[in-house]
Amino acid sequence: MIVVLKENADPGREKQLIEWLKGMRLDVHISRGQFQTVLGLVGDTSQVDMDLIAGLSIVDSVKRVSENFKYCNRKFHPEDSVIEAGGVKIGGGHFAMIAGPCSVETEEQIVAVAKAVKASGADILRGGAFKPRTSPYDFQGLGGEGIRLLEIAKRETGLPIITEIMSIGELPLFDNVDLLQVGARNMQNYDLLRELGRQKKPVLLKRGLANTLRELLMSAEYIMASGNENVILCERGIRTYSDYTRNTMDISAIPMLKELSHLPVVADPSHATGIARLVPPMAMAAAAAGADGLMIEVHNDPLHALCDGAQSLTPAQYDALAGKVRAVREAVR
Amino acid sequence: MIVVLKENADPGREKQLIEWLKGMRLDVHISRGQFQTVLGLVGDTSQVDMDLIAGLSIVDSVKRVSENFKYCNRKFHPEDSVIEAGGVKIGGGHFAMIAGPCSVETEEQIVAVAKAVKASGADILRGGAFKPRTSPYDFQGLGGEGIRLLEIAKRETGLPIITEIMSIGELPLFDNVDLLQVGARNMQNYDLLRELGRQKKPVLLKRGLANTLRELLMSAEYIMASGNENVILCERGIRTYSDYTRNTMDISAIPMLKELSHLPVVADPSHATGIARLVPPMAMAAAAAGADGLMIEVHNDPLHALCDGAQSLTPAQYDALAGKVRAVREAVR
Amino acid sequence: MIVVLKENADPGREKQLIEWLKGMRLDVHISRGQFQTVLGLVGDTSQVDMDLIAGLSIVDSVKRVSENFKYCNRKFHPEDSVIEAGGVKIGGGHFAMIAGPCSVETEEQIVAVAKAVKASGADILRGGAFKPRTSPYDFQGLGGEGIRLLEIAKRETGLPIITEIMSIGELPLFDNVDLLQVGARNMQNYDLLRELGRQKKPVLLKRGLANTLRELLMSAEYIMASGNENVILCERGIRTYSDYTRNTMDISAIPMLKELSHLPVVADPSHATGIARLVPPMAMAAAAAGADGLMIEVHNDPLHALCDGAQSLTPAQYDALAGKVRAVREAVR
Amino acid sequence: MIVVLKENADPGREKQLIEWLKGMRLDVHISRGQFQTVLGLVGDTSQVDMDLIAGLSIVDSVKRVSENFKYCNRKFHPEDSVIEAGGVKIGGGHFAMIAGPCSVETEEQIVAVAKAVKASGADILRGGAFKPRTSPYDFQGLGGEGIRLLEIAKRETGLPIITEIMSIGELPLFDNVDLLQVGARNMQNYDLLRELGRQKKPVLLKRGLANTLRELLMSAEYIMASGNENVILCERGIRTYSDYTRNTMDISAIPMLKELSHLPVVADPSHATGIARLVPPMAMAAAAAGADGLMIEVHNDPLHALCDGAQSLTPAQYDALAGKVRAVREAVR
Repeated sequence: MIVVLKENADPGREKQLIEWLKGMRLDVHISRGQFQTVLGLVGDTSQVDMDLIAGLSIVDSVKRVSENFKYCNRKFHPEDSVIEAGGVKIGGGHFAMIAGPCSVETEEQIVAVAKAVKASGADILRGGAFKPRTSPYDFQGLGGEGIRLLEIAKRETGLPIITEIMSIGELPLFDNVDLLQVGARNMQNYDLLRELGRQKKPVLLKRGLANTLRELLMSAEYIMASGNENVILCERGIRTYSDYTRNTMDISAIPMLKELSHLPVVADPSHATGIARLVPPMAMAAAAAGADGLMIEVHNDPLHALCDGAQSLTPAQYDALAGKVRAVREAVR
Repeated sequence: MIVVLKENADPGREKQLIEWLKGMRLDVHISRGQFQTVLGLVGDTSQVDMDLIAGLSIVDSVKRVSENFKYCNRKFHPEDSVIEAGGVKIGGGHFAMIAGPCSVETEEQIVAVAKAVKASGADILRGGAFKPRTSPYDFQGLGGEGIRLLEIAKRETGLPIITEIMSIGELPLFDNVDLLQVGARNMQNYDLLRELGRQKKPVLLKRGLANTLRELLMSAEYIMASGNENVILCERGIRTYSDYTRNTMDISAIPMLKELSHLPVVADPSHATGIARLVPPMAMAAAAAGADGLMIEVHNDPLHALCDGAQSLTPAQYDALAGKVRAVREAVR
Repeated sequence: MIVVLKENADPGREKQLIEWLKGMRLDVHISRGQFQTVLGLVGDTSQVDMDLIAGLSIVDSVKRVSENFKYCNRKFHPEDSVIEAGGVKIGGGHFAMIAGPCSVETEEQIVAVAKAVKASGADILRGGAFKPRTSPYDFQGLGGEGIRLLEIAKRETGLPIITEIMSIGELPLFDNVDLLQVGARNMQNYDLLRELGRQKKPVLLKRGLANTLRELLMSAEYIMASGNENVILCERGIRTYSDYTRNTMDISAIPMLKELSHLPVVADPSHATGIARLVPPMAMAAAAAGADGLMIEVHNDPLHALCDGAQSLTPAQYDALAGKVRAVREAVR
Repeated sequence: MIVVLKENADPGREKQLIEWLKGMRLDVHISRGQFQTVLGLVGDTSQVDMDLIAGLSIVDSVKRVSENFKYCNRKFHPEDSVIEAGGVKIGGGHFAMIAGPCSVETEEQIVAVAKAVKASGADILRGGAFKPRTSPYDFQGLGGEGIRLLEIAKRETGLPIITEIMSIGELPLFDNVDLLQVGARNMQNYDLLRELGRQKKPVLLKRGLANTLRELLMSAEYIMASGNENVILCERGIRTYSDYTRNTMDISAIPMLKELSHLPVVADPSHATGIARLVPPMAMAAAAAGADGLMIEVHNDPLHALCDGAQSLTPAQYDALAGKVRAVREAVR
């Protein structure tokens, strides 16, 4: 940790700060420049409260030199992690296509979509059962019944299933779910993360609406430090001032996360853009940038199909996209 | 709800969309302009999925005309709500000063700070017991023991207490807590909000890092629609590209929330800025803009005092600020 | 234009507003819903000040239905535009690789880089002569001398050249420049845009740091409405709270701009990320998303090469990337 | 300047970097911690390209310790600057009320508003003549004729006048203007800033839409380093994801700018919010936070008055606000 003092730092307070730091069993290397003094702290700085020090009147800035994430850090685990969900491998060269409807609606719907995406080579079936909604008056999903319908689709097609978990109390309902999704709004619900670290199912952790990569990795660290190292990261768009798309998909997060961490990184262009016709170009862009998988919304519902539906692709559009994604992956290999 | 069709909308698809909307028991008023067609939907539009319609290929945009928040909406409750916490009233002209340390550390500390802020006229004592931390390796608070120490300070000073709840499982520990705080990271933890709606203690709900006012009000609505109408809103800074302060305090949210809702609005300049010397000007600004209360960090810890400490004020600084806030409130009345 | 009135709009003021609108020779279609009234304005609404109406006490919101950009609008020009710069075509299937150093430094440097990138198939040579710098104390570029050196490199290699223009007074110096660049900071320098519209050289217009796509298109419209339709748009990253990259590259802007406009769209991954090792994945992502060209920083300077240098690629890295970009373009065609 | 090397930095490259830095006549202090090496650079680092070094493969981060702004830096000029415009003082305890219409429309209008705001104690008259508009098809202001009308109002009331300058070519038209405004879109139009530094009229410099405080100060530095130290800074709202106000007014910028710089800081709540009924609370908040002046839009036009008009106050509303602002200033003194 590096502490840069202000130019006009009071020597008495500087001494007090140094004593206090030494009291925390840290070695303090003092480097006096022409204009400013810099303290280099060596030792176990994990207990040092950066925010506290940064706010001191004599301090200009503080910087943590060694990132304090461990389990997910590529430095300590140079090889790509390969996470397995229901027999499907993700990461380390294994690319997974996750597809399915936004919400599970009926048995007919989910089974039909599952068969369609399987025919187009999808690896995992997605479908919302518990839905986090901004308004308490909006449709909240079929809940446990939705999971039961996903299980039927799994039995009919053999596809592993992923669905979102919002509360640890619901975990018993997820017995046959292969991959647990933590949504953007719960990325920093630390109690949920810790509990998911105490069970063994793999977890797909979505980046929050306005969270940095460091915060995402720290949330992964909550799960891993609690005992479950089967974590997949997911970029799904961040909130900006953008006026045409629902969110701004941060494609650069994909190569950056893969540099910082050994965990697989999946991209969700459907939620990132909210516009079906942007899903194919953004899916291809994510694949070109090195993603380990894609999560794509596909519907097979005449009501949606009627009007080309929102952010979801039709099975035919999905099939065309799947082929293009394969071609892009070939090109960048 | 208003649906604006694209200029070149296919008449066949337009007809299908209108039929589908009518099938949802909505009256569809069609207004054909020179360039575009606008559909005005009348009836119960709460079941209509705006995102779905917005994504249709023939649709340019969708706008919900009547905000779908009810309990917190000033339209249906023109009078200011007055919320009571441990005998202290907030809102409707009652201004509350909430003060105390960031974290509860020791009995000596919390009792000393409680006495100091009480002497300066504070109404409620704050102190973190369960602390949401970005890193699992950072200090997570004293938990239940922290609440026990807050209870001692409450007994010694008579001040009601507020502290953050992160998980509904911890609720039994909060029996003697007067006001439950939901932190920014949990603003959209809907399961927690619903559970807090099923009990009767008042809830102070902090705005999330990148959440709009509508989302904040919708989260309040989750609590209120579940049965607990005792909600206080709190502006605590939003995440922007700003380089000097931790967050950007959105002061305009205070008058805007008070226009949209009858709930009291409190401001937290300590977390919003992260810099002690900015707390007084921002506290005064919030009071000038019409806040119903302030939440201010105050420490009385030699380690912090040593260095003017971070975002917390000393008791003397707090005392001076409290006087100025009173003067500003007089001026704007 | 659509004006949504508030639920409780005063009928007297509503009548005044309608009279005023009619006084501007607009037809006002009134649609009264159960909860609200909507006014549909038909006629020449280009003179109506949306901001004024949106701020009226009886108005809930205003929406302009027909985008008021004309020259760059794909609706009125469905075919892709092909812009020619020094004999190189961009757009409509013509993909341009623009490469070169951030700043022109010496004749040796610019000629060496020009030869290197030409050997790797680059179409246009870039190099900064007039440099917009945040600080007046930073290196401001070689100015006219830099353009002279670019001209030498052009003569030696035959590559057309692009460089940034910051002020219309410098235009005479750009006689032999093939493509004029307007930087992000000047995207809304309307006087400059108007002047560039009064000459005939093609203009590459970069998106501002926090500008929407509509604002970018409106700035293009300034140039085109002044008489010069040879405009190329450029996505170069937007400012967000991101902590690892300099900007957040908004890849979705590429397909979205191409939907809204017929103008070519080029991407600049070097400035968008500020990190050389992110340039290849982001360049490939942009190509996969449908960009019409790429602008890539390449250096050939031992001082930079010494340390793998910043956001610039070495000629060897550029050569490898150029091959991959070709492969991606094949894959997505 | 501090350069933090990566943990696994190659010793050969580290040596090359250090040699290169020494070649720039810098002293390099090397501090080796347990995990990382830190280089402290002492000497004239103003020529060192931080971005270049930050991008090197062996470098983790770079931090400039001493801010490189000089003229506007409070460190080198501890006293508040007092800027004079047309005989009115701003800064150093002198508070200025600047009021007037968004655009100059007619002689009757500008003279009537000028008389009204003067009667309410306004110090300076504002009014837009050259208007920067997003669209080339929107009203661009009366230009030189608008300035002529402002001059009439000045003669009639004795109020000094401020209006925006967009291009240095228009400077001769501003002979009788007392204070030149640089708008948000031109905050980084460096050629304009440099030219305004070569004349002597005071300049009110508005913060750009997404610019940091450091960038704003650097733009002030452009003017001051060119010879004109009469600069006033203006906070007018930044672009965020906010959904209810046009911009988010960053009130904390006011005390922060005054800490960093000796220049006066004025706030513009009219443009920051875009909503007339938010102007009074935000004006009072800015005054409470220590602003040296306010810029308020006031109209006196029956068409606007008809409907309570947008972001502008009526003269009566302005008069009431002016009184409250005086009371707030008394309270915080």
